[in-house]
Amino acid sequence: MSGNKNQIKKETNGFLSFAESRSEALYIIKIGGNVIDNSEKLHRFLRAFADLKGFKILVHGGGKVATKIADEMHIEAKMIDGRRITDIETLRIVTMVYAGLINKNLVAQLQKYGCNAIGLSGVDGNLIKAKKRLVETIDYGYVGDLDNSSIETENLSKLINNGFIPVFSAITHDGDGQLLNTNADTIAAALAIGTAPHYQTSLVYCFDKKGVLIDIDDENSVIREINPLAYKDLKENGLIADGMLPKLQNAFEAINKGVKEVFIGSADDLNELQSKNIFGTKLFNC
Amino acid sequence: MSGNKNQIKKETNGFLSFAESRSEALYIIKIGGNVIDNSEKLHRFLRAFADLKGFKILVHGGGKVATKIADEMHIEAKMIDGRRITDIETLRIVTMVYAGLINKNLVAQLQKYGCNAIGLSGVDGNLIKAKKRLVETIDYGYVGDLDNSSIETENLSKLINNGFIPVFSAITHDGDGQLLNTNADTIAAALAIGTAPHYQTSLVYCFDKKGVLIDIDDENSVIREINPLAYKDLKENGLIADGMLPKLQNAFEAINKGVKEVFIGSADDLNELQSKNIFGTKLFNC
Repeated sequence: MSGNKNQIKKETNGFLSFAESRSEALYIIKIGGNVIDNSEKLHRFLRAFADLKGFKILVHGGGKVATKIADEMHIEAKMIDGRRITDIETLRIVTMVYAGLINKNLVAQLQKYGCNAIGLSGVDGNLIKAKKRLVETIDYGYVGDLDNSSIETENLSKLINNGFIPVFSAITHDGDGQLLNTNADTIAAALAIGTAPHYQTSLVYCFDKKGVLIDIDDENSVIREINPLAYKDLKENGLIADGMLPKLQNAFEAINKGVKEVFIGSADDLNELQSKNIFGTKLFNC
Repeated sequence: MSGNKNQIKKETNGFLSFAESRSEALYIIKIGGNVIDNSEKLHRFLRAFADLKGFKILVHGGGKVATKIADEMHIEAKMIDGRRITDIETLRIVTMVYAGLINKNLVAQLQKYGCNAIGLSGVDGNLIKAKKRLVETIDYGYVGDLDNSSIETENLSKLINNGFIPVFSAITHDGDGQLLNTNADTIAAALAIGTAPHYQTSLVYCFDKKGVLIDIDDENSVIREINPLAYKDLKENGLIADGMLPKLQNAFEAINKGVKEVFIGSADDLNELQSKNIFGTKLFNC
């Protein structure tokens, strides 16, 4: 990290310099469809997000709204070998629903709560540039993958340091005029890694459980903290549910790339992240 | 104007101060549906917009895309006394189409042309706050009207002065969580008036004629310049087509509120605005 810190670009005109902002905390919070589809959960979550102090970014998925709109337009979901394909019709729908309908309604609610949200997709300010996924065995269509150069950190810092709270839909672009559909979890991780040289970045995944559970049927069995050693132990003893393994894998990958900590927990509990300083399961390197 | 200038807020942290930027030119360009519905016209226009030097903002309407999507979803346009009504279903569609589909595709093309566009609606950064139209004889539904306090000039200046090129869809909000549908011509005028104390603002309306015509059937009869005296003469002699009168009325209203000049001309000719220093009809106060 110190190598990165030494390379921090110094600018004093137009926005706070990266160097100045390195010590500031930045929360990158991702919510999924289960929150968006539930009006009560959503408003509780947005209120908690608005109340979070300091720099923050929201990344949202699409929920069931896109499927509902596609049904109304009589457009069938395209599947190949059980995988969802983003053909040109599907891209049109997710662009409308994610970047338009959901994004602007989330921003309207946050503005109501006094949070200076600005709704964005990856094309805006060239903030997230993706590469169309190469066709190997399956042609996924207009799906964009991210790499280490995807995040335009300078433009993003200008927004954050000027008091805007970015709210990202999971739409990116290829820089050549083409919009692309990109996984929202992946976007959140890329934003956390991309901003890590300039902020103390915490990545927060909100899902439908209270955290990583020892017993998947017992919401009180949350493991509060996992470091790499504990992760190895839990994995070797088969104590982590299969669906959770890739999440933890990706979390530690982000931490190895400079992200300070990753939280996995329930959207319902976001208000405890700063007030009680606990939220779901915390993954960190120590 | 000097009163306004003296009140200019001085800030040196985070963005160029308003005072510093007063002398800078700012172009606010509005394109309508006839450009968006024609792929060839649109790309020619976007290339010309990208090539414009200096500060600029694009405001776009929706074209026929929203009607097409509404048809596909079997949602009928609601009309009362021949006026289009924005009911909740229509608001959902225009939010998807204007703020999502059209806005993000325009931004993707501009980014391809090297223009650092950022797609916005009025809710983003609280940039354009509207009031839901009061019900008098007709309930227009979720339609927002603007007034002198609608534009959040400080947030807008932060974006512009940091190198972002705002691209606005015609969606606003009421500050209380409700999105609203607002006329794109009105948004362009409000942006020009709101930014006039801080920039040398030119408002440019692109439509399907080469300018204000003496003979509506002769594209070569463009009146190059109209000042208030000439406007009075043209009006009294019945030389201006009825449909054009309110446009000119609104243009001179904007000029009286500090906008430097208003242009009315064809999107096809935008490349001549700076290169030949002529574009359609120029309205100004002298």
